[in-house]
Amino acid sequence: MSRRHNTISFLTDYGTTDEFVGVVKAVIRDIAPHATVLDLTHEVPPFDVKAGSLALARCISYVPEGIVLAVVDPGVGSDRRAIAVEVAGGAGVLIGPDNGLLAPAVAMAGGAERAVEITNPDYRLVAPGATFDGRDVFGPAAAHLCNGVPLDALGPEVDAALLMPATIPLPREEGDEVIAEVLWVDRFGNCQLNIGPDDLPASWPVSMSLRLPDPHQHGQTVIRSAVRADHFAAIGHGIGVVLDSYGMYAVSLDRRSAADDLGLAPGDQVVLAAGTDDQPGGGPVTTPVNLGR
Amino acid sequence: MSRRHNTISFLTDYGTTDEFVGVVKAVIRDIAPHATVLDLTHEVPPFDVKAGSLALARCISYVPEGIVLAVVDPGVGSDRRAIAVEVAGGAGVLIGPDNGLLAPAVAMAGGAERAVEITNPDYRLVAPGATFDGRDVFGPAAAHLCNGVPLDALGPEVDAALLMPATIPLPREEGDEVIAEVLWVDRFGNCQLNIGPDDLPASWPVSMSLRLPDPHQHGQTVIRSAVRADHFAAIGHGIGVVLDSYGMYAVSLDRRSAADDLGLAPGDQVVLAAGTDDQPGGGPVTTPVNLGR
Amino acid sequence: MSRRHNTISFLTDYGTTDEFVGVVKAVIRDIAPHATVLDLTHEVPPFDVKAGSLALARCISYVPEGIVLAVVDPGVGSDRRAIAVEVAGGAGVLIGPDNGLLAPAVAMAGGAERAVEITNPDYRLVAPGATFDGRDVFGPAAAHLCNGVPLDALGPEVDAALLMPATIPLPREEGDEVIAEVLWVDRFGNCQLNIGPDDLPASWPVSMSLRLPDPHQHGQTVIRSAVRADHFAAIGHGIGVVLDSYGMYAVSLDRRSAADDLGLAPGDQVVLAAGTDDQPGGGPVTTPVNLGR
Repeated sequence: MSRRHNTISFLTDYGTTDEFVGVVKAVIRDIAPHATVLDLTHEVPPFDVKAGSLALARCISYVPEGIVLAVVDPGVGSDRRAIAVEVAGGAGVLIGPDNGLLAPAVAMAGGAERAVEITNPDYRLVAPGATFDGRDVFGPAAAHLCNGVPLDALGPEVDAALLMPATIPLPREEGDEVIAEVLWVDRFGNCQLNIGPDDLPASWPVSMSLRLPDPHQHGQTVIRSAVRADHFAAIGHGIGVVLDSYGMYAVSLDRRSAADDLGLAPGDQVVLAAGTDDQPGGGPVTTPVNLGR
Repeated sequence: MSRRHNTISFLTDYGTTDEFVGVVKAVIRDIAPHATVLDLTHEVPPFDVKAGSLALARCISYVPEGIVLAVVDPGVGSDRRAIAVEVAGGAGVLIGPDNGLLAPAVAMAGGAERAVEITNPDYRLVAPGATFDGRDVFGPAAAHLCNGVPLDALGPEVDAALLMPATIPLPREEGDEVIAEVLWVDRFGNCQLNIGPDDLPASWPVSMSLRLPDPHQHGQTVIRSAVRADHFAAIGHGIGVVLDSYGMYAVSLDRRSAADDLGLAPGDQVVLAAGTDDQPGGGPVTTPVNLGR
Repeated sequence: MSRRHNTISFLTDYGTTDEFVGVVKAVIRDIAPHATVLDLTHEVPPFDVKAGSLALARCISYVPEGIVLAVVDPGVGSDRRAIAVEVAGGAGVLIGPDNGLLAPAVAMAGGAERAVEITNPDYRLVAPGATFDGRDVFGPAAAHLCNGVPLDALGPEVDAALLMPATIPLPREEGDEVIAEVLWVDRFGNCQLNIGPDDLPASWPVSMSLRLPDPHQHGQTVIRSAVRADHFAAIGHGIGVVLDSYGMYAVSLDRRSAADDLGLAPGDQVVLAAGTDDQPGGGPVTTPVNLGR
């Protein structure tokens, strides 16, 4: 037997409207009553593996030692693999479908040190149907690892280099502009971009301009002024580009939803350019431009 | 004192928008700090006893030993009874209102072995109003049972045969057709029917036809082709009839909501018939037919 | 070291769509693995400090000994203070922003006995941005207190009399009428008013009249008949004024949402007057009157 674990950090797209999350926890408690299940979120949009992988990556450096159980799994029941990936010298094991969901978090945790495909029927539930592997495969595997079952008892080792990767969009510079993308819109309407402080030229002033999709005319864009701000209350009445709690820039408003006001959603392109100090933030300037994606 | 319990599995229609669930858990922790509360779901539609009873029945065979606390209780404060029902040789006790909510789960757990009405004021909270029995009656009873209070200390025994039953719709065969009903629509839009593998003739081919309510014309129906599939990814672009994780058939689409696309909701009638192999699934065929409920 | 705590009761406006709540719990478990986090609610409307303070006040007399962690914090990252307030002889400590969120709960718990500003960097996380004090400041402070860190180690004492107060609207009598306000609309559509049994004249009969905002004509009101009832099932088909589980009167319907049917929302004015017994509840009587706020 290898080391025991006490915590299972749990992320899914199951929602809480149904009993899916509760049933997985019931199965875990039955197998490993000493384990605490820590819900990260269960509101990943249904089937959205990319959004789930980004949420898990945002969590991973805060998650305590133990098991990470992540299920966003549109291919459940098909021949996609169920995997368990060991990281950080065995301090953590990530469990989920091999569809890219785990990849960014595994990378941020230092990379896969060992990986197995979960196939051993001794550690699965017998089920009347093949559509709920959280209950029948992933949850039981997490619980058995908590009980000290060694990783390689779950199934045959697989080459970690051949696990499904994830695709995270990278920003790019074009001329004087930085072309970014909205990665995530949070509950408050903050629109996290895929850029951090190192992605903007140091010479840029506090004021900048944003070229955004025109919410009223498909394929057109609008130009909006914005200011860099350290926190929401410092934005004032205009648009802020705020260094968020994960060290990324977010397009934000003070006490209102930037996503609602500006019509932004994950995947939208945001083009940033340096502003001028005689053109302060706040006023909307609309210019029809081809989006040119 | 009788046996102590460590787990309270908890299901309600309280939602999580308010603090109702949290306050019940606070009361439980105050009385029985050693008990772990396991949330099954709290998003049963408000007042919907039938939906709650079905959700509880789906959970019950996965719930660990201990207490099941279930509250969907539109009659709170009236003379409907508060009950505690012992099952499985004392391994489990279900607590809730006597309105049929517990009945299917009790039946699936082997039937009621003992039942009491919860009346003893020593095990209730004194409350300023009569509208929150989860906090004042059911939660405290669950916690006191965890502490080893014997079942019959909660109140007088009642005849389990006289507890309120639940009404689960049964499918029926009419000529060459099987007449089923949507029991449950899950977050992903899968529409669980009240039929399993034993309810369809063994002679039917993989392809079948579904007669569904016409979402655009009240009282009319439409005919759609469908295929039986073992999992969602095997459905393809058409409609699938998938054996779900509870062993029931569900009308499903791959990575989309069947409920949204087909306009299905719980209680809708779905009439299944054998298909022909030269009429493969996917194409919509609309035929005006009287629904004839 | 001072006393250790085992429970952190947790209320926010973070929602559960994102991983915010999960990450705070992950941080707490890392620091104080023995502590149980008890979720009160995380669905306070975004930025709504008043709604959060009312929800916390409704919970506070049921919360077990230990830490109360409350975060509704539109001013995060600005110079608003982070505070910890000791109550009840040290049995409880409330942690959150100094924006009035904690004030009603502190008052109901007997008043602040000691308060500190949380400034000690030893008990905070180093963060890449300043917008998530739940993770970086409040959560760690709660966890360290659970570990026995004394309150005054978190930062300098502050005068509890100078903490930000909350403003709770008081009802008033005008002539024969009682002018009340909707404090809270719950999931079931019950509209809690800011009046209890002591706020209505003892001479009033069971039937009364309610003057409510006209949902169809802004600035106009409508008069509706209502009956006092002890619980929802006793209301019948009309409108009830029900003594709710917190000892306040709520405008309610039986098994339907009063808020939806009557168009009521938090902050709306409800004017109550005695009814007459020959004018029983239920029938809508519309009278255009200036709202006169």
